[in-house]
Amino acid sequence: MGIQVLCIGTELLVGETTNTNLTFLGGLLTAIGQEITREWALPDDRALMLAAIRQALGESELVICSGGLGPTDDDLTREIAAEALGVPMTLHEPTAERIRELYARRNLTNREYRIRRQALIPAGSEIVPNDWGTAPGSWCRAANGSVLVLLPGVPRELKPMFTSFVLPRIRAEFPPRVRRHTVAIFGHPEALVEERTLKALNGMPGVEPAYSVKTEAGKCEVRLTVKAGDDDRLAAGVAALEHEFGADLHPAGTELAALLTADLKARGWHLATAESCTGGGIGQQLTELPGVSAVYRGGVVAYHNDLKQALLGVPAALLDRHGAVSAECAEAMARGAAARLAAEVVVSVTGIAGPDGGTADKPVGTVFIATLVKDEVKVTRNQFPHDRRGVRGRTITSALNQLRSHLLATP
Amino acid sequence: MGIQVLCIGTELLVGETTNTNLTFLGGLLTAIGQEITREWALPDDRALMLAAIRQALGESELVICSGGLGPTDDDLTREIAAEALGVPMTLHEPTAERIRELYARRNLTNREYRIRRQALIPAGSEIVPNDWGTAPGSWCRAANGSVLVLLPGVPRELKPMFTSFVLPRIRAEFPPRVRRHTVAIFGHPEALVEERTLKALNGMPGVEPAYSVKTEAGKCEVRLTVKAGDDDRLAAGVAALEHEFGADLHPAGTELAALLTADLKARGWHLATAESCTGGGIGQQLTELPGVSAVYRGGVVAYHNDLKQALLGVPAALLDRHGAVSAECAEAMARGAAARLAAEVVVSVTGIAGPDGGTADKPVGTVFIATLVKDEVKVTRNQFPHDRRGVRGRTITSALNQLRSHLLATP
Repeated sequence: MGIQVLCIGTELLVGETTNTNLTFLGGLLTAIGQEITREWALPDDRALMLAAIRQALGESELVICSGGLGPTDDDLTREIAAEALGVPMTLHEPTAERIRELYARRNLTNREYRIRRQALIPAGSEIVPNDWGTAPGSWCRAANGSVLVLLPGVPRELKPMFTSFVLPRIRAEFPPRVRRHTVAIFGHPEALVEERTLKALNGMPGVEPAYSVKTEAGKCEVRLTVKAGDDDRLAAGVAALEHEFGADLHPAGTELAALLTADLKARGWHLATAESCTGGGIGQQLTELPGVSAVYRGGVVAYHNDLKQALLGVPAALLDRHGAVSAECAEAMARGAAARLAAEVVVSVTGIAGPDGGTADKPVGTVFIATLVKDEVKVTRNQFPHDRRGVRGRTITSALNQLRSHLLATP
Repeated sequence: MGIQVLCIGTELLVGETTNTNLTFLGGLLTAIGQEITREWALPDDRALMLAAIRQALGESELVICSGGLGPTDDDLTREIAAEALGVPMTLHEPTAERIRELYARRNLTNREYRIRRQALIPAGSEIVPNDWGTAPGSWCRAANGSVLVLLPGVPRELKPMFTSFVLPRIRAEFPPRVRRHTVAIFGHPEALVEERTLKALNGMPGVEPAYSVKTEAGKCEVRLTVKAGDDDRLAAGVAALEHEFGADLHPAGTELAALLTADLKARGWHLATAESCTGGGIGQQLTELPGVSAVYRGGVVAYHNDLKQALLGVPAALLDRHGAVSAECAEAMARGAAARLAAEVVVSVTGIAGPDGGTADKPVGTVFIATLVKDEVKVTRNQFPHDRRGVRGRTITSALNQLRSHLLATP
């Protein structure tokens, strides 16, 4: 059986915290050819934790356990792990000394009990250094030879500790089981991506495709899996997808904003945004990645109609005749932004995110998107079948995708 | 043992999909007094799924299983559930007919095999209606009396199916075990919230507090737990917290944007934003909730410095002398936005999100936030110790929190 991951913490089971550690661990373990075959989320409960650690260690050669290493009395993982391993706890004096210094620097006094708790590790285990917080992790070996890794639950500690210590160690000690490669396809619906993938892979034995739609990022990811050692087959499968999808295929994790930034940089053009119903969301998404300042000039959020006139020069007569949610207004917003923000390229949106404001003619979800490249404007009318959050998210993604298509079609 | 949740799907274990269904189920089950005592995430693997369903049904009276109900051959949950329950599969003809009609409307022909697969349910189980997709769920009873609920993994189907059918059924058939109440505290760090909570609850037996910091939402949530039936104790605990935290305590789930909108609406004031390093993120956060158009006029994203002059009237001499990342510039942006966007209230930010652009004097993470209420401007200099994403997130939250404090301090 592959790797098991135990995530400890009541907050995961009462709707307060979403388990992003599993997503993180799954991505990195997959990249080195490992498989997680079961994840457990458990409350801070002694009996449930002990039973889970025992069962997992009996089934798997490697068990990764996150959470429950803090200083308070409901942090139980250390002592329960020691009990499951059948060893006592020992104090790791260098760790106690390090935490003592940390606490002194923060003027935390009279904390010796809390300090010593965090410096306890199951006897015979190795320290996984924590340079990002107080409690260290540990790498423990059970009597049956299985490995139990203890890590804190806080993502900002777990992530660097895993990357710097645990991952290289796993890579050295556990041979890969599978090889996976994931690519991102932009601009096509999932059904078409699946159809074309199966056609492209036709006749390749041992290459298993799987699909993951990332609606909010405007792409569909395709994951190919082969057995460890079948790297040639995997490479052939990836090459077949590259041939099939051409310029629409990018490395997994690529974002639309990165594609746009690279394209604009290469052409020496500048981008501005003019938003209404997205309230700034397009600008935010564009500026998530560093380096965008070379191409992004800025934007206007013209939420109220009179700001569409005052800040973007949309004529009052146009608003009177066609309304703010119209192809004419979207185009005027784009042209106004190009002039006033001095940009060769603009994306503008105006629509009804709901839940109120819809009419028979323009129901909730009606969104006009205009893209301007040099002097050419393209406007689309979209009908997004979602709630407010969904309409806004789809508007942002569709606007960036429309801009990408417009740029690709411009010599 | 309480409820177990089984989440089926390889995508959960390879880093592609974060398990938000568990967060959703946990929140709603907690609200009706139920406890999830274990969650498992499993790949689409026959042997692992069968073992998990059998073990969970042997331990718990209620097992909720999501995922693996789709039309393709790697959707295995239906048949494995039937095997675990020891019953055959039966075709639910009304469901097959419904899916046939759905497919016909979408012009999907020659799909009888896929249609019939999705209309199969373990014999003797009840249909959980799916009005949001194709495959229905089912409510099955095992020989030992335990209940197994099958639901699709797609959140937009699982959520309404759970809320409309499964949740009321659980409430009717399973007595509550615990009572929990969560409140949101704004404007205080976790350590202080914990200290004051313990002081407020001093001497109340059987009321257990727990804390959950929501950094990105600018609040700390406090969860109180009592045994089912101890509702009086819970009410007393909540009352003690309300007394302790006063105007800083709000119902769990309350967002800063909602507090600001309500306050501005009550005063009849209007809000504008002037953003630089957040690229539109403050406007986006403010407009996430409906109804904000009554108070939010819009904003300017002045990413490039010349737009700070052109769109917000920040004097060139000021930018020359103090730089764009300065208290002076933040104040000028706020005053410019108030005048040009006709708003009584403004929040403006200018800073260095990184990873580049920092100096010895103004390192990455330096952010100036200005709030303007009527004619009064308050400016803070902040140093956020995070990466680009973290700096931008903290800037948005801190800006909204600063605006809330400024409004609270204004008669």
